[in-house]
Amino acid sequence: MQTFWENQFSQRAKRMTSSAIRELLKLTEQPDVISFAGGLPAAEIFPVNEIEEACRHVLKEHSSMALQYSTTEGYLPLREYLANYTSCPSFELEPDNILITSGSQQALDLIGKVFIDPGDPVLVESPTYLGALQAWNAYDAKYMTVPSDEDGLVVDALPECLRKKPKFIYVLPNFQNPTGVTLTLERRRKLIQLAHEHGTPIIEDDPYCQLRFEGEDIPSLLSLDDQFHEVYLSTFSKILTPGLRLAWIAAPRDVIHKLVQAKQGADLHTATFNQVVAYEVIKDGFLDEHIAVIRKVYRERRDVMLETMKKTFPANVHWTHPQGGLFLWVTLPEGVDAQDIFKPAVEQKVAFVPGGSFHPDGTGKNTMRLNFSAPTPEQIELGITRLGRVLSHTLI
Amino acid sequence: MQTFWENQFSQRAKRMTSSAIRELLKLTEQPDVISFAGGLPAAEIFPVNEIEEACRHVLKEHSSMALQYSTTEGYLPLREYLANYTSCPSFELEPDNILITSGSQQALDLIGKVFIDPGDPVLVESPTYLGALQAWNAYDAKYMTVPSDEDGLVVDALPECLRKKPKFIYVLPNFQNPTGVTLTLERRRKLIQLAHEHGTPIIEDDPYCQLRFEGEDIPSLLSLDDQFHEVYLSTFSKILTPGLRLAWIAAPRDVIHKLVQAKQGADLHTATFNQVVAYEVIKDGFLDEHIAVIRKVYRERRDVMLETMKKTFPANVHWTHPQGGLFLWVTLPEGVDAQDIFKPAVEQKVAFVPGGSFHPDGTGKNTMRLNFSAPTPEQIELGITRLGRVLSHTLI
Repeated sequence: MQTFWENQFSQRAKRMTSSAIRELLKLTEQPDVISFAGGLPAAEIFPVNEIEEACRHVLKEHSSMALQYSTTEGYLPLREYLANYTSCPSFELEPDNILITSGSQQALDLIGKVFIDPGDPVLVESPTYLGALQAWNAYDAKYMTVPSDEDGLVVDALPECLRKKPKFIYVLPNFQNPTGVTLTLERRRKLIQLAHEHGTPIIEDDPYCQLRFEGEDIPSLLSLDDQFHEVYLSTFSKILTPGLRLAWIAAPRDVIHKLVQAKQGADLHTATFNQVVAYEVIKDGFLDEHIAVIRKVYRERRDVMLETMKKTFPANVHWTHPQGGLFLWVTLPEGVDAQDIFKPAVEQKVAFVPGGSFHPDGTGKNTMRLNFSAPTPEQIELGITRLGRVLSHTLI
Repeated sequence: MQTFWENQFSQRAKRMTSSAIRELLKLTEQPDVISFAGGLPAAEIFPVNEIEEACRHVLKEHSSMALQYSTTEGYLPLREYLANYTSCPSFELEPDNILITSGSQQALDLIGKVFIDPGDPVLVESPTYLGALQAWNAYDAKYMTVPSDEDGLVVDALPECLRKKPKFIYVLPNFQNPTGVTLTLERRRKLIQLAHEHGTPIIEDDPYCQLRFEGEDIPSLLSLDDQFHEVYLSTFSKILTPGLRLAWIAAPRDVIHKLVQAKQGADLHTATFNQVVAYEVIKDGFLDEHIAVIRKVYRERRDVMLETMKKTFPANVHWTHPQGGLFLWVTLPEGVDAQDIFKPAVEQKVAFVPGGSFHPDGTGKNTMRLNFSAPTPEQIELGITRLGRVLSHTLI
C-alpha cells in the first residue's frame, strides 16, 4: 500500500517535511520537562469569562447568522473594528482593506498562493519565522536571506538582494520570532525607501506589536509606507486566544480581492461563530485592559528568565533582551551545535528549540530560541538553572 | 497602484476568478427574492441550545486546552469518534486515519496540494461540485469529465479516461451537488473495480450521506474498497452547522501523514474550541436524533418543490427526484441558456444557479440547480410558482 500512495503524491508533497519544531515538541511533552521550546501564550490568563459571556450572547441573539455559512471576506463588524484598530495614521483603512483569516498561518499560505510562482525568490530575514518558510516551501519559493542584529534586519545588506528582484520582503519588525529583536525606526524608514526604489512589496508580519513591556512603540512599516506597497498581518492568537484561529490581513483592495479568491478555494471562510464571538468580546474596548494584563505577566517572565540566565549561563553565551513578545534568542560560541545540546538538556528535564531550522541559508547552528510566555516564573527559574548547568557542562 | 500589484501576482493568482455562485448570490440577497441559488442548511433547526450548553461546559471544564494551540491532526476524542462514525464495515478505521479540516473546502485544497502537479489530469463527473474545481484550479489541474445520468456517474465511460492516467477519480456518490442523483450500488462496485485495474485512487466526497429521506442507504465507496485506495471526505456543515467550519478526511495513514504536513503550512490546525465543542455536542449520540429532524424538514421541502414543479413547470422541462440531500437539478430544452433566464427570474423575485459553471467541459448551459434546504415550504411553493411562470414565458 505504501508504494501505491508514494507514487501518487505531487512533487510539492514529496518535498514536504513536518515542522522541526512541532516534531521536537512531541519529545518535550513529558510532564516533568520544563519546555521553553513552544510558542504558546499563557493559558491561565485567557479571558474565559468574557468568551463564555460572548458565546451565550451570540447564541441567544445571533445564532442563525453565527452558525451559518458567511462571506469569505469575514464578518463586517469585525472588519470595521480591525480597520480602525490596525494603527495607520498616514491613511485610513476601510473594511475593504481587511480580510479575516484562519490564523496567521493561513495568511502566509494565501500570500504564497497569490504571489509565488515556482522558483520565485523571496527575501527573508535570517533567522526568520519557520511557519512562513513552511507555507512558502509548498509554492517552491527560493529564499534570499538578509542577516539581522540587535537592531533587526540589516538594511545595508538589502540593495544587493533587491537588485535580484525578489517577489517581496518578509519582515517581522517587532519582537521578532525567533530572535525577539525589534527593527529600529531608522531602519524601518530605510527599508521602505529601498523597497520603493526597487518596486518590491513588503509583507509585514506583526503578531506581537501590542506586547511591548518597555520602551516606546515604533510605528509599523504599514503606517510609514505612504504608497501602501505592503501586506500587513496580525492575529488574535497572542492578544485573545489562539484556539479560535483568528487573524487578519490589511492590504490594498486589489490584493485583498485576490486573497479573497484564493481563500474561497482554500476554506470558503473563517468560522463565523468564532468571528462573531471575538467581536462581541472586544467591541467595547476589552483588548486594551486585557493586553495590559498580558504585558504584565510576560514582562515578569522575561525578567525572571533574563536574571536567571545572567546568574547561571556561562560567560561565552550571549542572548537578546527583547522589549516585548514571547521569545528570546541565545547565541552559543561559534562551532557549537545547539542540536547536540538538545538531548542532554531533555535528559535534565529542560527543552528549547535549536535555532538552525529558522535559518533558510543553513547557518545559525549555534543558536537557540527560548519562549518565556508559557512557563510560570517558578518554572522559568528552575528550567533556566537546569539549562545553565547543561550549557556549563557542555561548553567547557 | 493597480499596475504595481498586478505585476506582482503569481500566474496562479492571475488565473483565479471568484466563484460564479458566490458572485450570483450577491445579486439574490434582496430580501424579497426567494432564492434557490444557495446551498445553505436550514438555520431554524440549528441545535443552538446544545451548542450553548457545550460552550458553557467546555469553557468551564477545559478552557485552557480548548482555547490554546493544538495538534494539526485534530482533537483526539473527536478523531476517535469519527473513526467509529465513518461507516466502514470491511476494515476498522483508527484515529490515525482521520484528519480534522476547516470545512470540506480545506480538505479539497489539501488534496490538491498533496496530489496535483501543474497540468495533471483529474477525473470528475460532469457536472461536479464547483468548490472542488475552484480548489484544484489553483494547482493548475486539468479536467477529464465523465457524464452522469439519473444513476450517477456513467461508469462505462470510465475505461477510456482511466487509460489516460488521471491522478484520481473525484466522485460525490450520494445526492450529488449539483444534480441530487445517487450512484447505484452496481456502478459503485464497477467504479472500484475499474479504479483498481488502473491503479487510480478515488476521492469520495460525501457531505450528504446522512440526509437520505427515502430508499435504502447504499454502502460508501470507502466501505466497498477493500484495498483502501481512497480518500473519503465528510463534514459537520450539513448535520450540525456550517459556521463552525468542521469537516474530516478518512484516508490511509500515509495519506493522512502527507495531508497533515500540508495542513501545518496551511493553517496549523482547525480551531480547537470548535472541535471540542462539537465533540461535546455529539459524543452521547445527539447526531442521530438531530439528523432525523433535518431529514424530516428537508423531505417536506423537497416534496413541496417537486409537487409545485409538477404543477407549474412547462412540459419540456425535466428534473431529478433526489432521495436526499439539498439540491435538485433542472434540464431545460436543448439550446436554451439558463443564464438568459436568470435575469427575468430575479426580476420576478426568484433565483437559481445556472448549471453551466458546474461543467468543466463547457456543456450544460441548459441546466439549473435548485436548493430546497434553505427556503421554507411556503417560500418554495411561491418561488417555484414564480419560476414556473418565468419558464413558461421564456420557453414558448
